[in-house]
Formats: sequence, structure tokens, C-alpha cells
Amino acid sequence: MENKKLRDLAEVGEFGLIDILTQDFQLKNNNSILGVGDDAAEIRLNETESLLVSTDCLVEGIHFNLMYMPLKFLGYKAVSVNVSDICAMNGRAEQITVSLAVSSRFPIEALEELYEGIHMACEHFKVDLVGGDTTSSLSGLMITITVVGRADKNKITYRAGAKENDLIVVSGDLGASYLGLQVLEREKEVFKANPEIQPQLDGFDYLVGKQLKPEARVDIVSYLEKLGVIPTSMIDISDGLASELMHICKASDCSVSIYSEKLPLDDLTSTTALDFNLDPITCALNGGEDYELLFTVNQSDFDKVVSNPNLTIIGHVTSKDSGNFIIDKNGSAVSLKAQGWRHF
Amino acid sequence: MENKKLRDLAEVGEFGLIDILTQDFQLKNNNSILGVGDDAAEIRLNETESLLVSTDCLVEGIHFNLMYMPLKFLGYKAVSVNVSDICAMNGRAEQITVSLAVSSRFPIEALEELYEGIHMACEHFKVDLVGGDTTSSLSGLMITITVVGRADKNKITYRAGAKENDLIVVSGDLGASYLGLQVLEREKEVFKANPEIQPQLDGFDYLVGKQLKPEARVDIVSYLEKLGVIPTSMIDISDGLASELMHICKASDCSVSIYSEKLPLDDLTSTTALDFNLDPITCALNGGEDYELLFTVNQSDFDKVVSNPNLTIIGHVTSKDSGNFIIDKNGSAVSLKAQGWRHF
Repeated sequence: MENKKLRDLAEVGEFGLIDILTQDFQLKNNNSILGVGDDAAEIRLNETESLLVSTDCLVEGIHFNLMYMPLKFLGYKAVSVNVSDICAMNGRAEQITVSLAVSSRFPIEALEELYEGIHMACEHFKVDLVGGDTTSSLSGLMITITVVGRADKNKITYRAGAKENDLIVVSGDLGASYLGLQVLEREKEVFKANPEIQPQLDGFDYLVGKQLKPEARVDIVSYLEKLGVIPTSMIDISDGLASELMHICKASDCSVSIYSEKLPLDDLTSTTALDFNLDPITCALNGGEDYELLFTVNQSDFDKVVSNPNLTIIGHVTSKDSGNFIIDKNGSAVSLKAQGWRHF
Repeated sequence: MENKKLRDLAEVGEFGLIDILTQDFQLKNNNSILGVGDDAAEIRLNETESLLVSTDCLVEGIHFNLMYMPLKFLGYKAVSVNVSDICAMNGRAEQITVSLAVSSRFPIEALEELYEGIHMACEHFKVDLVGGDTTSSLSGLMITITVVGRADKNKITYRAGAKENDLIVVSGDLGASYLGLQVLEREKEVFKANPEIQPQLDGFDYLVGKQLKPEARVDIVSYLEKLGVIPTSMIDISDGLASELMHICKASDCSVSIYSEKLPLDDLTSTTALDFNLDPITCALNGGEDYELLFTVNQSDFDKVVSNPNLTIIGHVTSKDSGNFIIDKNGSAVSLKAQGWRHF
């Protein structure tokens, strides 16, 4: 009799687990173009357009803490992170479904708050709530959103497609959301120790805002379209820049070199990181939840990219066997590793 | 200062809650044809076809108990109940996404079991797993599936559309799944009292099978297509016949009269109901989780419908102010009430 050791979830991590669970699945329908393994699935609609579908689940106690995450923001964020997955495919989000499991400790008013945030996000991102499921849970709140979007078949960007010498670009700045979380966690501890003390969030608005109410970069997708730039690969930064770069490398069969001094950091991110005795560069690399876009473009698009202050070129794509490096201002190259988020 | 009483979820129920939460949402995109309020949302694809999207969430401790629900069956059932929603729109399911939240108490082997069931269902129903999300939960297992399907624009069936004098039809038989659950619950209690005693499920295979591994009625959708019958309204029976009839009445602005002796009950369902001191008719009306199809057809389709042994005509549609009745073999009419399932 086989004495099979049961494998632990923590051992393989989220991405390893997905690989194990989905390895036997093959696509059978002709219109299923792309399945598991990118920011969204692709379903062919007609000669020129594809449908994009993605789903994301936020779990109380894992992805959010209601002590400092107002339900309205949670609703907004849940929509925004799903829309971000469609942006990462260079598409336009159009519909969402919302599936909610909630324990009876939540009064209806709490759920109305949550849906107010969902409504705000639907208005902002011009998506329609078209369905869902509402059920009870034994404990806590869990919200699963599925987003449906569209893209021109010829403009869809995958994680695969980055070519040697392509420029690596990120939108916005990095690490702010992670530091927003640190600030919120600190104030939570202060509050728990003494509920009389009001949380001190003044001056941290930008960081806390990036954490509680991240904005999917639909503006960047529009901008790229206006400029006629089609990235060679794209992904959104949910688990941290380093982790997302590894996804692109794996899918595109390439390596990357990035420059630490090029990483876009808001001044407040840098100073707050130092306050917390954290290295700002590490926060930018592994912070996560930035929901910025990371993409690669052909060098011929250099001029178009540099002209947008919301975009920063942080490095370039190298051949597969070059290895992944982050290069500091003195030219020293350090091997780049993905820490990412491990939920298990 | 307003002293607002917080309303309780139990007070409004699932459907009341959905109404409250989604009342402010309007559809903005031209291709969003139908939003919340039917078995699936409808998104227009082109002149002749629509996309159908539906989502369903199964929560441990609420929808299933792992003491008697093998994970393989759970995976199968989670897909099947979603496919059933597409059947209820007279469409064909094509793709699914699977979102999983799971506590670390589950070894990978358990999740592999679950995905084996999902895989079996994907093969059986010819749907592709195209995406998902896997995350941890603080406790228990929760699986949210979103299904994407297609239907000819002219063949889609809604809850709305039933007309006076239409025939009311159900597929298969009713109440079996509910009694399967009773059998499983009874054996669970016996097992808890004395773990030495093996569960006695012999002879209850049909009931337990309907509960653990319900089959979406894709065959009925194909049959209707072959016969050229387009139901005037349709819904799948997840919460119980009575509850689903009320949904059709509400959406179609009509009433219904059904005949108790016409309700299709398997013999095993009837005898097992009596063993449990339950009224078989009540089990058929309010049992739930049958995942059969309930639909209405024009009287001109009578011949086509009666020729299929899998279909039973149980009554007819009446005018809105007629009231909803169940009529027994003596001709006595009793007001029909939906009990349905209340998770909250």
C-alpha cells in the first residue's frame, strides 16, 4: 500500500498549485483561444474581436481587514482589481458579476455600503453589473468578481510576446500600496492598544489611497491606443514587480535586466519606507497591490513612451539564458528574485 | 440624530437582498441586454447571437458538508449547477472560470480530487476551464464558478414570457435530491453517534446521486431544439418548484395553477418521503436542488412535449389576478406558496 505523503499548500504556493490542478485540462471549444495562465482568458467572438474573462476573489482576513478597510472602498477595489486584469490584456472591461458570501453578522446596511462602492466603480470604469450570487457564509465576507471585456484581436497583449531588446515599462509608481498597508497596520496596533487614540493617517493619504482604493489603469490602455503602441507583452502588478517580471519571463521565454535607480517611487513612498526601516527599492520590487501596468514595447516605440510622464522605462528584455538582474547605480548586478505574495 | 435600526439579513432573504443591493444599477453598455434577475445575464455578440454569463457560489457548511460530499462530486456539482443556469436560458455552456478559497487544512491531494470532478464535468458538458483564482481562506472551502455560454438571440428563454393558457412543463422528477440529503444527514447522525456503524446508503443510490451529482439538463435543451420548441419562459429548479414558479409569475406578470397528481415523483422519492414522515408533494414543491428545468410552452406545442417521457405537463398559466394554486385530485385548490431555501 502506498504511503503517500500529503503535500502542503504552503509548499507549492499559489502558482504551483494552479499548475498542478489545471495540468489535465485541454481547451475543446474552437472559440476558447486562451485558458488559464494569463491575466484573463480569451474567447474568440468573430474575425476581429475577442472576449476577455477574468475572476478575482477577495477574502476577509486574507486580502482585507475590515478594521481599516471601509466596505465602500472594498467594493470599489474588488471591481478595480478585476478591471485591471482586462487592462493587462489591452482590453476594455464591460460587464461584471458579483458573488458574495457573507455571514449573518453583517447588517444589510453594511452590504449596501459595499454595493455603493461597487456602484461607484461601475460608474467610473463604465462597466455593468449584470449578475451574481448572494449567499451566507459561516464566517466572514468573501467577494468574487468576474469581469468580461473585449479587445480587438490584433491588439490583445499577453504575458508571452516580449522579445530581446524590448523596453520594459511601468505605469505610475510602485510600492505605495504596500506602504499604505504598513501605515494602516501600525495605526491598527496603536488603536488596539489604546482605543482612545485616533489613527494618524494625515500626510499618508496617497499611500493609504493606493492601498484602499487602487485605480485600474484604463487611462494607460487608452493612451497606448491613441499613440498606436501595442505592447509586446503586458501584465498588471498585483503581486509585486519582481513576481510579475518572472511571469513575463516564463511566458515569453526571456530574461530581464532592470535598473534600481529607474524604478518609479513617489517621494512619500521612499521616506515612509525609511521610517519603517524598509528599503524603498525592495518595497517597489515586492510590495504588491500596485495595480499598475507592466509591459514591454519594441525599441521603435521609445519616443512615444518617454513622452508620457505616467510611464517609466525601467530596463530591457534580454535573452533567456542571460538571467534576471537588477542593476544598481554603480553598475553592480544582483540576481532578481520574485518574492510576491504567498497566501498559503 | 437618526437612530436607524440595522436590518437583519434573515428578515429580507436572499432575493429581497439582491433587489435592495442592485436597485441603483443601470445598464450602460449597449451590448448589456439583460442584467440581474434571470438565470444568466445576456450580452449581445452580434446580429444573431448572445453571450450568457452566470455565477454560482458553493460554501462549505452552507451548501455542502464534506462529511458526506466527496470532493470529486463537489467539483462536478459546482460545474453542473452553473451549466444548468445556461440551460435555463436555452443556451449552450462553453467556458467556465473557477475561483477557489480554501483553508490550509486541505492537502493538495484534496484539491486534486475536487479538480478531478471539475474535469469530469468539463468533459461531460463540453465546457473549457479558461481561468480562475486560487486563494486561501481562514476557514473552510468555497468555490465560485462563472459560466459563459451562447444562444441564438431568437431562442433565448427568460423568466419573463409566460402567457395565459401556456402549459407548464418540468423535466425529470422532483424531490429526489432533497430526500437524498435527508438520507445523508440521517447516516451522518448515525455515524457521529457510533463511528463503527457503516452508513446505509444501499437502495438510496438514485436519491443520493441526485443530491451529490446532479446533472444539468443539456439533453432537454437539445431535445427542444430538435423539436423546434422554444419555451415561452424557462428557469432551472434550484430552490424548489414552488419558488421557481413564483419567479416566473413575477417576471411574466401571471399566475399558475398546477396539479398535485401531475407532479413527477420517482417511486423511491415517495416511499422515502413517507419513511421520513414527510409529504412527498411538499418535497416536490419545496425540496430544492433538483436542477431540473421548469418551462412554459404554447398549447400548440402540446403534442411535441407529451411525446417525451422526460417531460411532464404539470399545469397551466393563468391571468395575473387569478392567484397561484395547487389543485389536488379531488379538485380542491390550495394557495401555492414558495418556501424555497433561505440561507440567511
